[in-house]
Amino acid sequence: MTTALELTRLGYSCTILEATSSAGGRNRTIRAGDIVNETDSSQTCMFDFDDDLYFNAGPARIAHHHEFLLGYCREFGVALEVFTNDNRAALMHSANSHGGQPIVSRRVHADTRGNIARLLSMAVNQSALDAELTAADKINIIAMLRNFGDLDGSLNYTGSARGGFPGQEDVGSRQRGERVNPLALQDLITETFWQQRQGFAHGLEQQPTMLQPVGGMDRIARAFETRVINDLVADAQVTEIRKTANGVRIVYNRLGAPTQLDADYCICTIPATVLRNIVNDFSALHRAEIANFNYAAAGKIAFQSRRFWEQDHNIYGGISWTTQDITQIWYPNNGLGQTSGILVGAYIFGGSAGVNFAGQTPQQRINGALAQGSNLHPEINGQAARGISIAWPKIPFQLGAWGTSNPATLLTPDENIFFAGEHLSILQGWQEGAILSAYHAIDLIVARDSA
Amino acid sequence: MTTALELTRLGYSCTILEATSSAGGRNRTIRAGDIVNETDSSQTCMFDFDDDLYFNAGPARIAHHHEFLLGYCREFGVALEVFTNDNRAALMHSANSHGGQPIVSRRVHADTRGNIARLLSMAVNQSALDAELTAADKINIIAMLRNFGDLDGSLNYTGSARGGFPGQEDVGSRQRGERVNPLALQDLITETFWQQRQGFAHGLEQQPTMLQPVGGMDRIARAFETRVINDLVADAQVTEIRKTANGVRIVYNRLGAPTQLDADYCICTIPATVLRNIVNDFSALHRAEIANFNYAAAGKIAFQSRRFWEQDHNIYGGISWTTQDITQIWYPNNGLGQTSGILVGAYIFGGSAGVNFAGQTPQQRINGALAQGSNLHPEINGQAARGISIAWPKIPFQLGAWGTSNPATLLTPDENIFFAGEHLSILQGWQEGAILSAYHAIDLIVARDSA
Repeated sequence: MTTALELTRLGYSCTILEATSSAGGRNRTIRAGDIVNETDSSQTCMFDFDDDLYFNAGPARIAHHHEFLLGYCREFGVALEVFTNDNRAALMHSANSHGGQPIVSRRVHADTRGNIARLLSMAVNQSALDAELTAADKINIIAMLRNFGDLDGSLNYTGSARGGFPGQEDVGSRQRGERVNPLALQDLITETFWQQRQGFAHGLEQQPTMLQPVGGMDRIARAFETRVINDLVADAQVTEIRKTANGVRIVYNRLGAPTQLDADYCICTIPATVLRNIVNDFSALHRAEIANFNYAAAGKIAFQSRRFWEQDHNIYGGISWTTQDITQIWYPNNGLGQTSGILVGAYIFGGSAGVNFAGQTPQQRINGALAQGSNLHPEINGQAARGISIAWPKIPFQLGAWGTSNPATLLTPDENIFFAGEHLSILQGWQEGAILSAYHAIDLIVARDSA
Repeated sequence: MTTALELTRLGYSCTILEATSSAGGRNRTIRAGDIVNETDSSQTCMFDFDDDLYFNAGPARIAHHHEFLLGYCREFGVALEVFTNDNRAALMHSANSHGGQPIVSRRVHADTRGNIARLLSMAVNQSALDAELTAADKINIIAMLRNFGDLDGSLNYTGSARGGFPGQEDVGSRQRGERVNPLALQDLITETFWQQRQGFAHGLEQQPTMLQPVGGMDRIARAFETRVINDLVADAQVTEIRKTANGVRIVYNRLGAPTQLDADYCICTIPATVLRNIVNDFSALHRAEIANFNYAAAGKIAFQSRRFWEQDHNIYGGISWTTQDITQIWYPNNGLGQTSGILVGAYIFGGSAGVNFAGQTPQQRINGALAQGSNLHPEINGQAARGISIAWPKIPFQLGAWGTSNPATLLTPDENIFFAGEHLSILQGWQEGAILSAYHAIDLIVARDSA
């Protein structure tokens, strides 16, 4: 839709062939009554009808510096609100640590910083780093570390108010006389899980402020669609992509009837997983890259539930992490304070957990998410119901979540056929990447026509 | 209002004497047409009329664990949304560092973590901490530090994608070939400003998720007021607080006429700064604590502006910091993506900067905020207009922002007079503190009546 919109603005005439009834692809928001068809199952969303009860089954957050996407939101009047990645009230759970009990995130962050600051200040004061630090540096870095880790006057770390107070996550002791005991350094570093988890929200794509459209991610798809609707042919399943003497010929089925469309150029944004099974005239090199392009086997499941996470645990939005297959639990960032909300009970990025998830029936996925989720939130069993899942490897016309191979040949056109999509960008898996890739294709076409 | 609401629920009859036309005190949101009267000036808010163009002149954020306040929001149907403290696209500015140029927050965070991880891993590998760490610990902590600081394979820190790419905060180089150069450790630790700023959003009261009511903080005051409106006497300025044989007598002026009210108990929530000038029968100890209770001289100023921070710098909500008197610049957390927004051009916590701010005329405050703000955002001069300020030390019936002394005597009643307010809580300056203090007073009354 980006290429059609922008090429039209440049004076080109465009036709968008959309395989389904509505454009947007993996930008998909599921609400009451929506149907999720996979290659071997069909589910109907049984959420209550309510503007705040939605499930962003594909992309669900926008980095603040994804400025082309955000520029379209601004231009189209798509309202935005904050998406929280790092909620210090959320949980971190490893089956192998702390007796399998989840730990409130604030404790992990506070105690990791506290231990690092304690050890580094010790090393500094033992003159272990005198080759690196001047006497003035040492004084300054100690002052910084005291604040960084909330060390006491003796540069010890004996816990911090940053880590909260016992029971606070439940009912809130207001006395605050006694701080929660700090986690032992050893417990914070033994597993890969603990070693890596505190870095996540520092990544450039995951730093605050993260954003989401008010009302669901598909507000963006619908806003684009409205602007290209006259050029859009829905329910058009491409069956052949051919080269002609001076251009391209696309053959597609629409409502059972084969149709052909001749054009100067084709910009093909079909995922490689789907494209590899469409009859084409591509070069051997292009075919090979398409055939071997890897995609993440990501999946999600969502439940409607009483907001026990807010009401009982002061968790407003954000993400809990676990070493179990479900990987993450997402709390809704919208409708805060309402009675019901949509809890994402699993967000599996891919790997064997994603393949397993895709291999399960919808009911098996529900059972698994509830069983694993109850290790973080026992309430999930009684409260979370009407689960609906999506396994992107099994969604027709997608057959995968996002590209994970490094593109090369597909960045260059095959005669008059150009390729675009998130999988061909430096931001794979992000909507901004799809836009950047569209711009790349547009640039190539404009350059050719200007030559 | 909390005491009246809850005591009424317990069967008591209550009367609220409110000095102004509307209850809520420092919970105050300023919109188009509102008037801010200080003891020696009057301003009219010239913002455009728009639901998203408001200025929370008092409290402006709610910690996620302030569960009594949030419980009332839930009960009253006050909608909530996320408030951002820590926006990595915001700026950190010291007049004495980096040539006076503001630094994008992501760089400070990434490079501080990077340098700390580099130095600690060096010390660990030089066996400087072998008395603290086992061989296994050393392997694990190095793995953790690589992630913590984004170190390279040689455990060096040469900058990180977490710090962004040159120009990204402006127009976004999408090539990402070259990372921004890291800041030198020395530059990150020389001043108290840099030593302390990265700790702010880790504090228990400032951790994510932070919240704000949709539409302005006074949605909470209005929701309370609706529920106690039958017991509320507005425009009632208390002039005397007296003890009687079996209770209390309050004398107040209303519309120029003195009135007296006899009751079993008084719960006095008048700020100490105001209370010390009201005729009373308090004990000498209570009088002394009231007379000497200190308050923060906090103030804020807000401007209506084009959202240049979003459109030109990808800053959506959050706070920039500076060593200048204005201390902070707050970007609106609501109406993201809209054309205009309310920029808080200064939030001064108190101290000499707060006293100076209070001593200035409204126009002097505007001039100062624009001059200082332009060192972070040159656009502020042409874009930010219609400034309106509030200096809490000069707001009638408040005469201060929040209590800063440790309460003692005022926690105990003076015969039938009980005291409450944020200044008497463990959460001074927070609305949750005012509620906790109200509960304390209620508990004392209920206990006495149960004796």
